[in-house]
Formats: sequence, structure tokens, C-alpha cells
Amino acid sequence: MAETLKVGVAGLGTVGASVLRLLAKHGDQIARSTGRSVSVTAVSARDRNKDRGFDVSGFEWFTDPVEMAEKGDIDVFVELIGGDSGPAEDSVRAALARGIHVVTANKALLARHGVALAEIAEANGACLNYEAAVAGGIPIVKTLRESMSGNGISRVYGILNGTCNYILTRMEAEGISFEDCLSDAQRLGYAEADPTFDIEGNDTAHKLVILTSLAFGTRIASDDIYLEGITSITTADIQAADELGYRIKLLGVAQQTETGIEQRVHPTMVPKNSAIAQVDGVLNAVAVDGDFVGEIVLAGPGAGGDATASAVVADVADVARGDRTPVLGMLAVDLKDYQRARMRLHEGGYYIRLSVYDRPGAFAEIAHCMGNAGISLESIVQKRHAGSEAPGKYDEDAPQPVILITYETTEVAIKEALEVIMSKGVVAEKPQMIRIENLN
Amino acid sequence: MAETLKVGVAGLGTVGASVLRLLAKHGDQIARSTGRSVSVTAVSARDRNKDRGFDVSGFEWFTDPVEMAEKGDIDVFVELIGGDSGPAEDSVRAALARGIHVVTANKALLARHGVALAEIAEANGACLNYEAAVAGGIPIVKTLRESMSGNGISRVYGILNGTCNYILTRMEAEGISFEDCLSDAQRLGYAEADPTFDIEGNDTAHKLVILTSLAFGTRIASDDIYLEGITSITTADIQAADELGYRIKLLGVAQQTETGIEQRVHPTMVPKNSAIAQVDGVLNAVAVDGDFVGEIVLAGPGAGGDATASAVVADVADVARGDRTPVLGMLAVDLKDYQRARMRLHEGGYYIRLSVYDRPGAFAEIAHCMGNAGISLESIVQKRHAGSEAPGKYDEDAPQPVILITYETTEVAIKEALEVIMSKGVVAEKPQMIRIENLN
Repeated sequence: MAETLKVGVAGLGTVGASVLRLLAKHGDQIARSTGRSVSVTAVSARDRNKDRGFDVSGFEWFTDPVEMAEKGDIDVFVELIGGDSGPAEDSVRAALARGIHVVTANKALLARHGVALAEIAEANGACLNYEAAVAGGIPIVKTLRESMSGNGISRVYGILNGTCNYILTRMEAEGISFEDCLSDAQRLGYAEADPTFDIEGNDTAHKLVILTSLAFGTRIASDDIYLEGITSITTADIQAADELGYRIKLLGVAQQTETGIEQRVHPTMVPKNSAIAQVDGVLNAVAVDGDFVGEIVLAGPGAGGDATASAVVADVADVARGDRTPVLGMLAVDLKDYQRARMRLHEGGYYIRLSVYDRPGAFAEIAHCMGNAGISLESIVQKRHAGSEAPGKYDEDAPQPVILITYETTEVAIKEALEVIMSKGVVAEKPQMIRIENLN
Repeated sequence: MAETLKVGVAGLGTVGASVLRLLAKHGDQIARSTGRSVSVTAVSARDRNKDRGFDVSGFEWFTDPVEMAEKGDIDVFVELIGGDSGPAEDSVRAALARGIHVVTANKALLARHGVALAEIAEANGACLNYEAAVAGGIPIVKTLRESMSGNGISRVYGILNGTCNYILTRMEAEGISFEDCLSDAQRLGYAEADPTFDIEGNDTAHKLVILTSLAFGTRIASDDIYLEGITSITTADIQAADELGYRIKLLGVAQQTETGIEQRVHPTMVPKNSAIAQVDGVLNAVAVDGDFVGEIVLAGPGAGGDATASAVVADVADVARGDRTPVLGMLAVDLKDYQRARMRLHEGGYYIRLSVYDRPGAFAEIAHCMGNAGISLESIVQKRHAGSEAPGKYDEDAPQPVILITYETTEVAIKEALEVIMSKGVVAEKPQMIRIENLN
């Protein structure tokens, strides 16, 4: 058997602890799989004396991860510090520059510096593996980098944030509001004290830009992304979606179009019978449409110490086995520039929820505006509010919800139509608009 | 860039043609991904002059695949001949013995000779890759061999045969009989003229035994498998399943138990809200339960020329990249013997459909037998046949369907209880028994 692979782990939080536990439990199995023993020899964390529930005295200890990267007697540097700059970035750069392989779970770092880091890795013959950075335990990076390397890919999309999916799932199952679900998610540890990053879609965006690069062979474009979170979703939307045969999911979608690649993160109507619609709670799922393989869907735990550790250790095992897949699926120099498709040209169906003043002619006005914009309607649902049940009696002060589902149209057409509708004074508030993803 | 990887393709049927087409279309992309050009230089098929819709004149031609394996100027031998003996086996053995890497889509060959072939591959430093042999385009072999190498696996299960899943899906959607669905599937090319191998579960079994070996690190045990096909499933079962919140799928399941590993292929009740229940038509899906990662589910096309070619080419790309994963996830010498769990000790819930003579005391007798065997019932559904609608009027000649769902019990208990029930003369025919898979 070849020499032991020496691993340095920087960051001993939940994931770091799981990595140590996994290697202790399944080290023999990994050695049989890779032909090498894999052993943690060095660790780095701020406080050596903190009680972590395990003994760290057997490891070379570094308070500074950059020092471990520069001087540690290690073959692989596992970065579990987090953040897109500071010690995480500095230590990863230092390790790669020294030709030390790097395994990281850090999506923010990859999203911001992925191409630059790939260049350093390639220049120094080091691997940079990051399966855990996207969709946790789901092997989507390997699937794109290796299993689908013989496919032209037209779209990759997924549920990439467990917090949002947990909130949307509970809103649907229990009919409770976004705010109440969020509080509960915070109480249960599924959402951060400051949940902005999750619920506004930024976390999904970080993961999506990595998938885009892998799927389309383009340089990572973290800023060229359409971003919309889930804070505006109401139980009325979720209920209407249900009645119309849809569920609402926060999707990250990267799609090849005639004008370029769309990168978008937004609440999305997905048909109830689609695979992605079945993914509930904190689970993640990613689907990829390849021209030869067709659509592949991978689902599983997108976060959590143990699931993340599973992906981290698989990446370490690849290094041990001697696998050398290019960081972004090909050499950085071969990546194309990202050509952004204009979001206003996005094509698809739309769900529109209007709050319409209940007076004669109001609906005709709306239908007229949609028709003028060239938008055809697939369904129209008008419901009376509780409290205005008396038939035949108009109450101009009580606007009524009207739901429209459009046939395929463009973003620019729908936005212009909604502006015209608002200018006519027939609706009581800004319309709700949710994109429908074509999953046939 | 390294030297071109020379590929010989044996078998120019649907998959072979797709492989050539894929390499022609995406060869540049594969070269960027692997760092080497990949080029088909030799082919083997029986008839050189057959019109295949593409030009074969540029390739070195072999009528005998064994000759190509022994003498072809190739680095990789792609076996697409089929069959677990004859030219497929002979040519693969010859290639491996010469140290030529082999990529195959041949599940029967792997199921029967996998360990022996692994030994030859290892002795000669050759790869043996077979992603396409299990679940077509779904990267389950790579996921088990590489991505989950740091997990203890407790169960792997899946829908591994598109023909059976197509038939069961249509029986459910359209309420038509097994026989009618089978005829339709044959007409549409989803089932063979002799469908025995698919509908009796043998095809699923071939794939399952490979998954078992990968998941549990055991030698392949093709004969140690419990096998039950879908021919006994009726629309009455499917309808009853629907009403009780289940769907019926033909699953292959390999599961670690206290007494060993269960390998079983049988029609299975799966809860409607489970991921596996959503997999319809000819699609395949595989789920793996790992102790660190949790449950990962992969779904996609399980057959078809292009999807299979995608998997074959991914395997070739791994060879080009220099990846050297052991054939069965570890060296053959490290594989444990397969320890078969006794099926009579299988634990789970059961669906039982009885045809009960409609006379006083019949049902009490049944309940009594189940109770005597220590079996608790979760639900009982009794329905009147059309034609015996008059309430309060007994007709001893018209047996009535009674559906029982049991709580968890053992195979031996349920079988003994059903034998006793049959001996009491209260049921008109052999009871239907379908296992419920615990997917919580």
C-alpha cells in the first residue's frame, strides 16, 4: 500500500468534528477503496483548549490556518473555516501555491475566487475539490465534472437552500405565514439568527454560479445573476399554486438560451408531479438536462455536519486514489467567458395574483391589458374573500383576489402588462408575479 | 496534451452507434475535460457491410471481438455485445489479460463473472468500468464506488427495470390489466418479444447484485437472491394501494440485517410521498442510505442508446483522465463473502388481499388467524363486489375482496398465517401478498 495521505483540517466546527469522526469510523474502508491510509495529522482552530468532545492532542496544532497551509506536514488541506476572504482565502491560496491539494466546503470562496484558485491549483499540480460546497452530501459536482462530461447541457436547476425549502414546505403543509415559519425555523436551528443570506437567495446564488460554470464550461459569474428571495410569498400564493397543480420552490436555474445563459434564483412554480416538486423540508435536489443522457435528478441532504463530512471525505478519497479532475471540469484557460442572457427576454409561463377592486369592468380591463401585450391566459381563478360572500352585491372597498396563469410569454411583456394594469387603478396593490418553470 | 486514447468498440447496435455519435459531437469537450483526445480507432461487429447510417471505413475492422481484444491497437476495449458468456466474456477476459482497460454496459456479465473479471483487471493493471450496466445513464456506480466511500451503507434499493415500471405506471394511470399493458409495451418497443427476463425480475436482479457488492463490500452473489416478478399484480391491487396511500413498484433491495444481507426483488408497496414512488414510466431510480450522508436518491433514464452511451463515454473519460478506482470499490481480495439473510426472517409490513366467502364468521376467522400468528393489523378494507350490492343479504357463492395492511411482522409469521387461513376454507383463492418497504 502507498504512503499514508496526511490531512490537515482547518476549522473544527460541526463539519470538522464530523470529518474526524468519519475518518475514525470508516478509515479502514477508505483505505481499501483508495489503496492508501488517510490520516488527519494536523488541525487548525482558534482555541486549542475548547471542549470539542474529542481529543486533539494527537494532531499537530496550528492556531493560524495559513501557517498550517504554509508549513504543515500535510498532503491535503481541508478548509472548513468559511467566508470568501480572510483566513479561508489566504490559507487555500497558500496551500495550492505550495502544491498541497485542497478540499473545501466553502461555496462563497468558490463563487468569488473559483477561477483564480483553479489557476493556482493548475499551475502547481494540486487538486481543488469542493463537492461539499454545492448541495452538501449530493454528488452533483462529481456528476457534472465526470459523469456528464460527454453531454451538452441545456439546463441545470435545483433546490439548493434547505432553509428556504423548509419554510416553503411548512407554509404549504400547515398554512402558516412566512414570518411564523421563519421564526420556527430559527428556533429549530434551520435558519440563522440573521436569515437574510438564505431567504433572499444569496446562498442559492453562490451554489448556482458554481454549477453554471461546471455545466456550461464558462468562467464563474457571481454578479451576473437574477436574484429574488422568498419573502414575498404568501399562503395565498401557496394555496392557489396547490389548486392549480403546482408547488412553489426557490429554484436556482442556469439555462442556455439563444442570447446567452440565464442565471436566476427566484420562487418558482413547479408542476406537482415533477421530481423537484417532491423535495420537501431541508432536503436539496439538483436536476441536469443533458443532450445524450436526458434528465438526471439527484436528491438528498444539502447540509448538516455528517452529510457535508461525507462529501468532504469523498473528495479527500479522490485525492488519495490519485484522481485528477480539473477544478472546473476543464483547465481554467479553456473556460469560455460567461455570456449573460437578458432577463427581460426570459421566456416562460407566469402566475399572477392580483388584488382587484370588485367593480364592473375591472376584470375586462385586466384581460384587455394582457391581450394588448400579446399574453394568452391558460387559467383564470377568481375567488371571493371571506366576508364578501353575499352574491350579486358589489363592494368597491373590498378587493378580490384574481389568479392568472399565462401561456409562455416573455418577462418584458408580462412586466409591461402589469405596469399598465397598475396604472388603470383597478388593482389595490402591486401584483404578485411568480415564474413557472417548464419541466416537460 | 497526452497521447490520444485509442478506443475499440465491440458491438455496433443502438448503444454502439450512440457512442460513436457522442464522441463525434462532444469529442473536443471530452478532451478538455480529460486532458487527452479520445478517438475510436477500431470496431468489431459481425457484418461490415450492414447499413448503419454512418461510415465505418475509417476504423480498423474486426469481425471477431476476441481478435480485437487480443490484437487491436487500442487502449480501451468497449464491450457492447451482451450476454454473460461467449464472445462478450471471452473478449473482455482477453482485453483485461493484456492490460487493456475495459468499459462495458453488460450487467449479466458483471453479475456472473464480476469478481473473476476484477481479479484479472487488478492482476494486469487495467480498469474495468461499468456505469452503464446499472440504471443506464444514472451515475450510481460512481456514486457508490467514489462519492459514498466514506459511508457505512445500510440499504440500497431502486427501480432498475424500465419495462416493469412502465407497465405498473400504465396499469395505475389507466386502470388496464397487466396483460394489456404488456402487449402495449411490446408494441411500443418498451418490452421484448419474450419479456420473461424483465417481468420476472431477473434483469433487476442482475443490477441489484452489482449494487450489493458495491454497497456492502461483498463478493457478488447472483444466486443468493429472493426473486418475485410483477405478473401477479392486478388492477385491484394497484387500486387498493392507491386508496391506502401507496404505489406498487418493482424494487430491487439490498439491506443489511442482523443475520446477513437481504437481496430481494419483488413488487413493493411504497408510500406515495416517497421519492421512489414518483418515478414513473421507463425511468429508473436508486436510493442509498449511508450512515453519514443520509439518503441519496438518483433518478433518470435507465435505458436507451443515448443515455447508455453517456455512461459508457463517462467511463472511457475516467480512463483517459487516469482515474483508477478498484472494480468493485476495493480490491477483489478484500471483498467479504456474501452472508445471506434468511428471507423468512425478513421484517416489514405486508399488504394482503384476500378473496373471502361472504358468510358470517369468515372475517372473524381471518382476524383470529392473524392474531394467533402475532400479527397486528394497521388497516382493514372490505369492499363489496359490484353485483352483490344488496345490503344484509349473504351470497356464499360471491367471495368479497378484503384488504389487510399489517404492522411490521416477519415473513415466516405472515406465510404461516396465510396457510392457516387457506386451510380454514374461508378464502376462495390463494391470497395476494405484497411487501411494504419501510421508507421513513
